[in-house]
Formats: sequence, C-alpha cells, structure tokens
Amino acid sequence: MADKSTESEAPAEAASDSPTGSPAQPNPTLPEGFTDLDRRAIDTARVLAMDAVQKTGNGHPGTAMSLAPLAYLLFQKHIAHDPSEPNWVARDRFVLSPGHTALTLYTQLYFSGYGLELDDLKALRTWGSKTPGHPEVGHTTGVETTTGPLGQGVGNAVGMAMAARRERGIWDPTTDPSAESLFDHTVWAIASDGDMEEGISGEASSLAGTQQLGNLVVVYDDNKISIEDDTTVAFTEDVGMRYEAYGWHVQHVADGEDLAALDAALTAAKAETGRPSLIVMRTVLAWPAPNKQNTGAAHGSALGDDEVAATKRILGFDPEQTFEVSDEVIAHTRRVIERGQAARAQWQPRFDAWRSANADQAALFDRMTTRTLPEGWADALPTFDADPKGMATRKASGAVLAAIYPALPELWGGSADLAESNNTAVEGEPSFLPSVHQTKMWSGGPYGRTLHFGIREHAMGSIMNGIALHGGTRVYGGTFLTFSDYMRPAVRLAALMQLPVTYVWTHDSIGLGEDGPTHQPIEHLAALRAIIGLDVVRPADANETAVAWRTILEHDDRPAGIILSRQNLPIVDRSEFGSAEGTAKGAYVLAEASSGTPEVILMSTGSEVQIAVAAREQLEAAGTPTRVVSIPCQEWFAEQDQSYRDEVFPPSVRARVSIEAAIAMGWREFVGDAGRIIALDHYGASAPYTKLYEEFGLTAEAVVAAARESIQAAAGNPGPASGSDVVGGLHTRTADQ
Amino acid sequence: MADKSTESEAPAEAASDSPTGSPAQPNPTLPEGFTDLDRRAIDTARVLAMDAVQKTGNGHPGTAMSLAPLAYLLFQKHIAHDPSEPNWVARDRFVLSPGHTALTLYTQLYFSGYGLELDDLKALRTWGSKTPGHPEVGHTTGVETTTGPLGQGVGNAVGMAMAARRERGIWDPTTDPSAESLFDHTVWAIASDGDMEEGISGEASSLAGTQQLGNLVVVYDDNKISIEDDTTVAFTEDVGMRYEAYGWHVQHVADGEDLAALDAALTAAKAETGRPSLIVMRTVLAWPAPNKQNTGAAHGSALGDDEVAATKRILGFDPEQTFEVSDEVIAHTRRVIERGQAARAQWQPRFDAWRSANADQAALFDRMTTRTLPEGWADALPTFDADPKGMATRKASGAVLAAIYPALPELWGGSADLAESNNTAVEGEPSFLPSVHQTKMWSGGPYGRTLHFGIREHAMGSIMNGIALHGGTRVYGGTFLTFSDYMRPAVRLAALMQLPVTYVWTHDSIGLGEDGPTHQPIEHLAALRAIIGLDVVRPADANETAVAWRTILEHDDRPAGIILSRQNLPIVDRSEFGSAEGTAKGAYVLAEASSGTPEVILMSTGSEVQIAVAAREQLEAAGTPTRVVSIPCQEWFAEQDQSYRDEVFPPSVRARVSIEAAIAMGWREFVGDAGRIIALDHYGASAPYTKLYEEFGLTAEAVVAAARESIQAAAGNPGPASGSDVVGGLHTRTADQ
Repeated sequence: MADKSTESEAPAEAASDSPTGSPAQPNPTLPEGFTDLDRRAIDTARVLAMDAVQKTGNGHPGTAMSLAPLAYLLFQKHIAHDPSEPNWVARDRFVLSPGHTALTLYTQLYFSGYGLELDDLKALRTWGSKTPGHPEVGHTTGVETTTGPLGQGVGNAVGMAMAARRERGIWDPTTDPSAESLFDHTVWAIASDGDMEEGISGEASSLAGTQQLGNLVVVYDDNKISIEDDTTVAFTEDVGMRYEAYGWHVQHVADGEDLAALDAALTAAKAETGRPSLIVMRTVLAWPAPNKQNTGAAHGSALGDDEVAATKRILGFDPEQTFEVSDEVIAHTRRVIERGQAARAQWQPRFDAWRSANADQAALFDRMTTRTLPEGWADALPTFDADPKGMATRKASGAVLAAIYPALPELWGGSADLAESNNTAVEGEPSFLPSVHQTKMWSGGPYGRTLHFGIREHAMGSIMNGIALHGGTRVYGGTFLTFSDYMRPAVRLAALMQLPVTYVWTHDSIGLGEDGPTHQPIEHLAALRAIIGLDVVRPADANETAVAWRTILEHDDRPAGIILSRQNLPIVDRSEFGSAEGTAKGAYVLAEASSGTPEVILMSTGSEVQIAVAAREQLEAAGTPTRVVSIPCQEWFAEQDQSYRDEVFPPSVRARVSIEAAIAMGWREFVGDAGRIIALDHYGASAPYTKLYEEFGLTAEAVVAAARESIQAAAGNPGPASGSDVVGGLHTRTADQ
Repeated sequence: MADKSTESEAPAEAASDSPTGSPAQPNPTLPEGFTDLDRRAIDTARVLAMDAVQKTGNGHPGTAMSLAPLAYLLFQKHIAHDPSEPNWVARDRFVLSPGHTALTLYTQLYFSGYGLELDDLKALRTWGSKTPGHPEVGHTTGVETTTGPLGQGVGNAVGMAMAARRERGIWDPTTDPSAESLFDHTVWAIASDGDMEEGISGEASSLAGTQQLGNLVVVYDDNKISIEDDTTVAFTEDVGMRYEAYGWHVQHVADGEDLAALDAALTAAKAETGRPSLIVMRTVLAWPAPNKQNTGAAHGSALGDDEVAATKRILGFDPEQTFEVSDEVIAHTRRVIERGQAARAQWQPRFDAWRSANADQAALFDRMTTRTLPEGWADALPTFDADPKGMATRKASGAVLAAIYPALPELWGGSADLAESNNTAVEGEPSFLPSVHQTKMWSGGPYGRTLHFGIREHAMGSIMNGIALHGGTRVYGGTFLTFSDYMRPAVRLAALMQLPVTYVWTHDSIGLGEDGPTHQPIEHLAALRAIIGLDVVRPADANETAVAWRTILEHDDRPAGIILSRQNLPIVDRSEFGSAEGTAKGAYVLAEASSGTPEVILMSTGSEVQIAVAAREQLEAAGTPTRVVSIPCQEWFAEQDQSYRDEVFPPSVRARVSIEAAIAMGWREFVGDAGRIIALDHYGASAPYTKLYEEFGLTAEAVVAAARESIQAAAGNPGPASGSDVVGGLHTRTADQ
C-alpha cells in the first residue's frame, strides 16, 4: 500500500499492479482516541457492504468499502448528532451525494443506532426494505436527503449551509454574526468523481464560494474510477485547483486509509469558518479486494464469492461467515448515542435560556419548525381591481410577495439572475450575502432575505431542495419558464421528496414575444404537468395569482411552480365573472352560459383565458350558450371530489374546446372525443407577441370555429382521436391549420 | 478610461464613477494593418446596435457595443471564412454563446457581406426578419448555431472542435496527426458571464481540456455585469484559474478596447495547438454610453434616445441620424470577401489534389457532407431469432451498432460514463482520445470512434449538437432514460435546429429494478414526446430495435431518442405475429383478433407489449376477439396517412386499452373516451422489477379487466374523462387502483 499514498501520475495503476502485496495492517495510522476496535468496526463496514451486495446480487460495493474509514470517522467523531433524536435542530447535516454508495451510509446508521439493524442490511434493495438502492429521505431515519442523480447532493449541501445561516439570522439575530450561536452547525458532504463531473456541482460550489459558507465541508472521494473505469479517458482536470478558483479552502489527503491525516483535515476544515472547505481524498475503489480493487467492475456489481472471501481473509474475517459483526464492535459504535445525548444535554440549557429570553423568536421557531403558517396571514394578500388594460401576472406575483413578506418571515427567495423580470425581489429587503455588502443595486448581509443564485438554474433547484430539507423556511426561486428545463432534475427530486419549494416561472409562452423560439416555452407546461407530485399553477389574472400563492403556501407537502406572464393580462371583473377563489380548486366556472345550461364549454389557462372569454361573447351573441372554465391548476382540480368536478364539467356536455398557447398534450382528457384542442404544434418565433398570437391562430375566431365543430361532433358519436389528428407533440393543432 | 484597463477589485465601479471623462479616442491601440477606418467601422457597429434596439424598442444593446472590437477583429482578421461561400468545408467556425447579443453577430455578417443588409438590422426582432432576437442557424446565413439558452454555445463549440478532428481523421487519415491537414480549422467562440456560470460550460470545458482541443479558442467577455447588475452578488470565482485547472491555455486581456493586445492574444491562442485556449477579456458593458455603461439596465433594454445621442456624440457620429453607415466603411469591411476568396482559392488546389489522390476518401467525403447513406447499408442489419427468454433491447441495440459500424464510418458515439450499460461502445473500435492512449479498458487516439463524455449528460447533448452542426458525421450518445432530464435543454435545441443526433436512453422504466425511484423514469416518455421535432422510439423487442435504428438513420432532419430496456424482453416470433417492419410506421398490428374484427384493441410500447400479448391470449380464450398494436414511435405514426392510421385503429372500435409503465399522459388520444389506460401515477421503488410490475398492477390480468370495462363503456356513450378519473400526471391510473 505504500504506493497508494503517493500522488504520482498513475497511483491507482501502481496499487492494482501489486495486489498481492496487500497489507495485513490496512490502517497505517489512527487518530487520537481510536483503537483497534475502531479499525475492526471500519473493516466490519467493508465486510457488510460486500455481503449485502453479494446477498442481493446487485448494488455498489466498491465505494462502500473505500469510503468506510471516512464515513466511520465522520459519524463517530466529527458529525455532531444524537441518533436517539434524529430531528435535533442543531445537529450537523450529512449528505451522501453519490447515493449509489448507499451502504456507506446504511452501515454507519446501523453502527450509530438510528434504527437500522443487521436484517435491514440483509434486505438491501428489496421490496419494502429500509435500505433501498439509493438513500431516500423520509424513508430511512437518519437520511437527510434523497440522492442518486449525481451532483444533486452537493447542491443540497450548499442549500443546507445557506439555510442554516438564514435560520440563525431569523431566530438568533442579536448574537454577533462573528460569534457562535446555538443554532450553528456544520454541513458535511461526500462527493464522488461523478458528482464533480456534473455541472450542477460546479454551479453550486461557485455560489458557495461567493457566499463564503464556512459551515460547509465537502470531501471529494478522488478514486479515479468511474463506471467506464479509469477516469483519465474523460476527467483529467485538477479539481482542487478548480475549487481554489471558487474561493474554497482546499486540503489534500493522499490516502483515504490514513485515518490520522483524514481526522486532521476534517478538524481543520471545520475550523475554517470563513470559506467552504474541500478535502481532496485519494482512495482506491474497493480496497482491499485483491483482484477487483481499482476497477470499474467493482463499482456497480457484486464482487463474487471468491473475491469476497479473499478480501475477508485480508481483513482478518472468517471467509465462511457472512454479515459477521461482533457484539463488541456494535456496543462500541453505539456509544455514539451517549456522546450525542451528552452533547445535546449541553446544548439544551442554552436553548431553554434562549427560549425564555426571546419569546417572540421562540414562537416563530415553533411555528417554522412545524411549518405552521401564522393565523390571519392571508389577510395581507392584495386584491386587484378590475382593469381591462390589466397587469402582467408576474407583476401581480411581485405585489403578492411584497404584501405577505411582513407576515411570513419564513418566506425568502430570489432568482437565477432575473430578479426584475421574475419580480422575485421585494423592494427594501436585504440581500443574502456573505458579509455586509453594497452594490449599486443591492445591499445586504449574511442574514439577508433576497437570494442571488446567479445564472445557475440547476444549482438553484438543488439548493432550494437543500434549504427545504434543512427545515424552517419556505423558499422560492425564479427563472424563465423555458429554463425550467435546466433545473428539471432538481424539480423532480423536490417532487419525489415532497418538499414545499416554489418555482416562479415567468415569461410563460410565446407571449414573451421578441426573444424568439429559444426563449418561448411550448412543451414546458405539459412536461411539468408530467412530473408526479408537482403542482403546476398558471393563473389567468392578478387575482388568480394572489389565490394561487395562498394555496401554494397552504400546502407543505409538495413543490409548486407558479407560471406567470410577461405581458399584461386583463384583470377580470369579478362582479361579473366567477370568483378568483375558484383558483384554489384548480378549475372553476369563470363565465356561465347565459341559459345556465351550456351547449359548449370553453376551457383555458393563463393568458389564453381572455381569448376564451372573447370567444364566448361571440358564441353567446350568436345564440350559443357557452361556459368558460378557467383551469389554473390541473393537479388541484384532480383532488376535488367527483361532484365538484362533474359540476364544472358536466359529463353530458361533450362539446368542448381548450385553448392554451402550448402543445395539445394532456388536453384530450378534458375535451374528450368530441372536443377540439387549440394548441401549438411548432416552435415560436421572434416578433411582437400580438403578431404571434394572430399568425399562430390563437384567436377568439379560431375558438368559435372549433366550438361549432365540436358541437356538431358531439351530436354524432365520434371515435377516439388517434386515427385522425392528434398524436403526442406532433400534429397537435386542430384548428386554423 | 485609464481606470478601466486596471485589474483592481472594482474596475467597473471606477469606470462608471467617472463617465464624464470618456475619451475622444476610444481605441487606444490598433493592430498591424488596421487604420482609423477600422476604428470607424467598430464604432459604426456600436451605433447600429444602439439604433436597432432603439427602433425595435427592445433587445440587448450593451454587449453588442462592448463586444464590437472583438467581433470586428475576429471577422475581419482571425476567422478564416469566405462570406461568398458560407458552407466552405474548411472554414473556421464561430459560435456566439451569449445569443442575446445577436447584434454582435448580425452587424459583422452585414459588414462581411453574408447577405444581411441595413434593412435587416432595421427589422430586428420582427415577424419574418432575418434578424430574430437570438441567432438561428438555417435562418440567417453565416449563423453556425442557434444560441440563447446560456452555456449551450460553449458545448457546441467543443463539439465542433471534436468533430473537426474526427472528420480529418476519416478523410485525411494518412497525414501525420501532428502535421497540418487541409481539413484543419479553428473554432472560435465568445462566452459571457452567464455562459460561464452555467454548469454545462464547465462540463464541456473540462472535457475539452482532457481532449486537448488545440483547435478551440474561447474568448470570455468578463464584463462583471449581468441582469442583476454587479456580478459580485453571485459570481466571484477566478474563471481563468478554473480553466487552468481544466488544462486550458489561459490569457488575460485587461481591456477589450485594446485592439492590439486582443489581436496578439487571438494570434497566440490560435498558435497554441496542444490545448484549448481561453482569453479572459475585460470589457465595460455598453461602453462608451456615458450614463448607462456598466449597468444591468444596459444589458437587455434600449438605452433611450438621450443616451443614444450622447453616445453617438462621444463616438463622433451625428446624433440626429440613425443607422449612419458610410459607404467607405462598408466598402472597406466587405473587402473581407476578397480575402476569403483568395484564401479559398489557395486551398482549392490542395483539395483537388487530395480528391484525385484519395478516390475512396473523396467519395466518402461527398456522401458524408450531403448526409447520404451508402447503398445497401441496411443489409448489414441483424435479425434476431424468436426467443421467449429474449434479450434486452439495449443489448440488441449494441448488436445493431456493431453490425452497421463497418458500413457507416460516419457513425460514432459513446456514453456519459455508461458504455457497458448503454451498450454504446462497439468492441475493438478505438476511443476518441487526445493522443495515443491506453488504459485497462480503452485504447485509442485522436481519430478514435468511441466517445467518452464522462458523467456530463448536459455537455454530451450540447457537444452532440456541435458535432452535428459541424456536418459530416452521425453521432449518438447514451445515458439512463431518467437522466435525459439532465440533458433536456440540449435535446430541445437539437429538435429546434433539426439536427440528426441520436440519444441512446436505456434502463427505460421500473424494469431497471433495484436502483429505485431516483433512477426509474416514470414521466420521461411523456416529457420527451412533448418535445416538438424529437422522435421518441421505444421498441418492444430486438427486431423492432433493428428497424428502429434503420429508420432513425434514414432521417437526417431531426433528433431521435431510442429508448431501451435493461431487462430481457421476449423476441417475438414474427412467423406468428406481425412483421417488425411495422416499426418504421410508428405503430402496427402485432397480433390480429382471431375473427379479424377486433372487439377491443390493446396497445402498448416496449417492455409492456408482452403484457398486452399475454392479456390478448386470455381474452381470446374467453371468446373476445382482441387486437394488439405495438406503438414504438408515436411521431412516426402521426406521419402516416389517414387510411393507414384508420387501419391500425379503426374508428369504429372504441373499446381500447393502453399499457405503458409510465404516466398516462398522452394516451387518451389513442384510447378515447371509452378507453382505459393502465399506467403509473406514482414513483417507483427499489426492488426486483418483476415484483414491481406485480405490486404496481402492470399485469395481464389488469389489462383483461380494463378491456372488459372498456368494452362495456364503448357499448354506452361515455363522456370525456375530465370529470372522472384522469388528469395530467395525477390520478392517472384507472385500473387496479
């Protein structure tokens, strides 16, 4: 193993070229306080990882073996936690960004006493087990975030570190920012080669550097192996230097088996509070497996019985036994509970004293940590007077935020460099910046409320997830709707984790005009509605926008995207039309047919609702009783009971037309076989938006013609659409083509 | 302006603090051969940018002003091009990654004589003009790629540089790699702060470093201003140092107005052929506008009449005139055509000589540059014998690639570090690596054919676009289907640009099993079908896979994703069932009803087709004539004529059931009001896949039950679904719930 600690051009090769020289003493040094029993525990973690994958037949043994020393050191010594109280607010957070090495975490949760037992490890990756293929927050106690898609964990960790600072600023504002607060803690993360290759980690790390997040420590597991084996075919950069360029404190540990060196680096990283810390730690994947160490094969496949046995022999374990854990080891590792309880017992009086001395903050703390909104907060919501000239819904959204900010200190957010376009920055609120800071446009400090994500939508999404996971605050982040694509993997994870984050997606259609097809979302509404557990909310006017924000904030178990126009939209006269309160139900009758019994139903969302209303006027004038339904949120509507849904869309009324400045996908559910869909089946163009609506046939006249067609079709007995006109994203336009 | 060239902490501030001190001589130095007329031309570009935005009322004047010197220098001196032959194969390529500063490019295309005239600049951002808000390839001659979504251009440029090397290797393999070839040229790109903040540019640049792309020069416009104004609120990293970490050659130009320094840096960058080059060029946004220079406001809004007039005065232009261009300036700038023609005339004899000496390569060149497939190539495609045990379609795809590789040298590709999982690497083919290179798993060299993108899906997508834009080759890139989300913005641009790139997306459903919900795509099929112009192809067995590849390669005007299973799928006995040739039509009758007239149609894709076939057996056994339709590609089916579509789905047969291990979205089009959709309305789980199919109700029994329901419903007169069960991504499951 002597070769392994050198930083030569090909240390990995060197190590694998002499596998027979594997040492009987795998851990050359031990940190203070550690004994051979700790060494045995670490090797037990390697054995469990091998055995669990071997039993299941699939999984990722390699990094679970080579990361065992680091993970053990973190959980037993560096992470401030109390496994008997996993939700302790002041606990350190741990993020395993390479979620495929879930066993790295599961074995430590087992050792630490978070509730996982040996049987859980044996049930790895099976139906209903607590040990799924990748760690899932909310599923396994002690897991702080769901990881697997690479790079996301780094963003989560940055978000947690930012949230920790903001929460401290809210709850403990009087303590000098340079002094320690009882809410301070450290966010520890492990990142793999894959995490470092993904752009999202670069985005998040650059922002972490700007934010000088001294409460963040990332250990980069530099094992130079990925699935395609030797990373030199694709990844030869100097990661440490890159992080120095980001403004991080960077240390190198030449051998991940060198516990004393690793311990010192972790201690130094925590001591550095002015910058985030990166530790570049060199490991040999699957060490000390004699034949498969340092190979891509050991990354994602079981090692095989022979190799497992050989490795057990090297580690001094019985090759005939599986899941060999001595009682002594477990008794030893679970003493971390006592240490955790002692730490928490020391902290508790400080917390109690703080509670007594800060009644208001304490009440806020209780409210925020249980995600309870204050009573009467919604009274602050504005209402907007009817106005045919109208207001862009993005502007209405900005007005809503400004109005509710005083009532909801937990609410904060920003934009990926589009604050003014997204209307996400509330005037006069300080920016969240690392130190007292002043530019021409922004001033702020470490506890500020306006976030500046930079032009990094993906990191924004992932950081928002970290903020929500950290607990306490409610965060929103804005960009143009078309760039929701850039953050989509993080949005999916928010939905999967049921995190109450809010996306402010403005410039929501060809209605943005001159910027042209790269900036005009066409398929994005459908693509976002496709994400299970995400509420996609597209209000039609300023008052729908206010109710939409209220409803979004009333949910604490899901993400939502509020989808807003760049252009002005008429503010509907609610004395004449249905109440905007219907927004909360997802769909509602905005305009009733004159006769009370509609012959046709026109339905629409957002900026196109006004077109449906105009078409209704023409149809009514021609003697056709016409209902207009506004559908700001399909997901909320789906949650209504059957009777309400039938009330809005009586099954007997089969003549229906939808209009949305986007693809047709999804609308057949609402319009049925006899219905017509006014949609777009092509990309946009660069021109004033009024010209585009006209050229693309999104007009009241087109709706009227489609309504007449649908009335005729409903009188017959139409078959499904598949044989005729509408399939997927192509040929979706049925009118005016 | 003296302050501006210093690299102090806040040079931008310093410059804006003394706007009145603006110099009468804005260009302190000139490169050799440049005169005051060139200086006048540069200032003319600034004036045109201001006037065009002012006339249209919106757009981005700021960077078009401050980038004018660089752009002029590139187009007049450094870029090897001939505006009279825009498709000259050996031309240098130019990529404007910050597409919002389209005027930077349009003014130079006007100056160079690419066909844009003053009236086109006056028509900026209007319906039908050649000057849309962001540059669009194929729309405006001289534009090499569509940009606007930030970061993508950097990836495109990396892809072009890679393609240039591969193409040289194909066409001119005998010239020593270290010597110059007639196909060599340089890819020049401009990148903005926003491009550098986006993670995709980091991914692509890291790979460019590994690939030692000496034919790539990127100029980073370091103006320290983005839409939220001073970038210090979000972006404080040392970009130059980061690029050094990637292995790039990095130069700094302290003042983008210093033409001589810039000229020297560009010359040095081109001379460096062992590494890609970055030039960090400091500019002042909107210089020399006296009040709005160096402000976020000058980024994306017209400057206003007063400011435009004041700036014209500083530049020595008549403030009363608009679009002031002297004939002398245009005559001077268009001399670039003569120089380009002269360069091409020098090149042509070398090319002719090469043609004569290399008949085979020349024929290949002609074929590739016209995207013509060789006659009989498809004969090489394998067919697979019926086999109930079957084969994973990803494996069949790998066999197809191996079979057609000899016939199609234009075909190459790789994976985002999942070569073995995606079956994208053809055994024995050399890797595309910067120099002769050998690892345990891969060997290759500069002209290799197997691409290693690293764990960088987004860059992969963007690089593939650059490769396709460069012309000649056909590229594919693989990852897991769930990670199509990571590359989605690049996929959209491929569709918008109609580029024939192919995505190999494997592990296409819960059928991947144990990796669990983060890795199991649920909404991705629908979300990809939502992208207009993308073919989404999900074959049901090995033979459908072969026909799918053939059909994909026969199209040269669109991207396609081939969506493949991890698990084995039965190879259908084609003597008993419909021919796999039906794949090319997008949907076809796989199994006919025993009576010839179906009472119900079961439809499915990919791995679920076998479930439909099993359900048909049960239904037929119970006396229900049942047809099974396989639908590998909805987009291809939509292109068939009405009679074929009606043949596959007779409108009179309203009892229909679809089954796909994904959300329901989109299927109502096919099944109609009386139909039933077997789908998923929740995320997956970590367990063996057979268990998941059973637990999630994706079974033949569920299909049979749904078929009976649908037969009953079709006998009645069902209304649309909206009032009942299926809405968007929620509550999409209608059977077995």
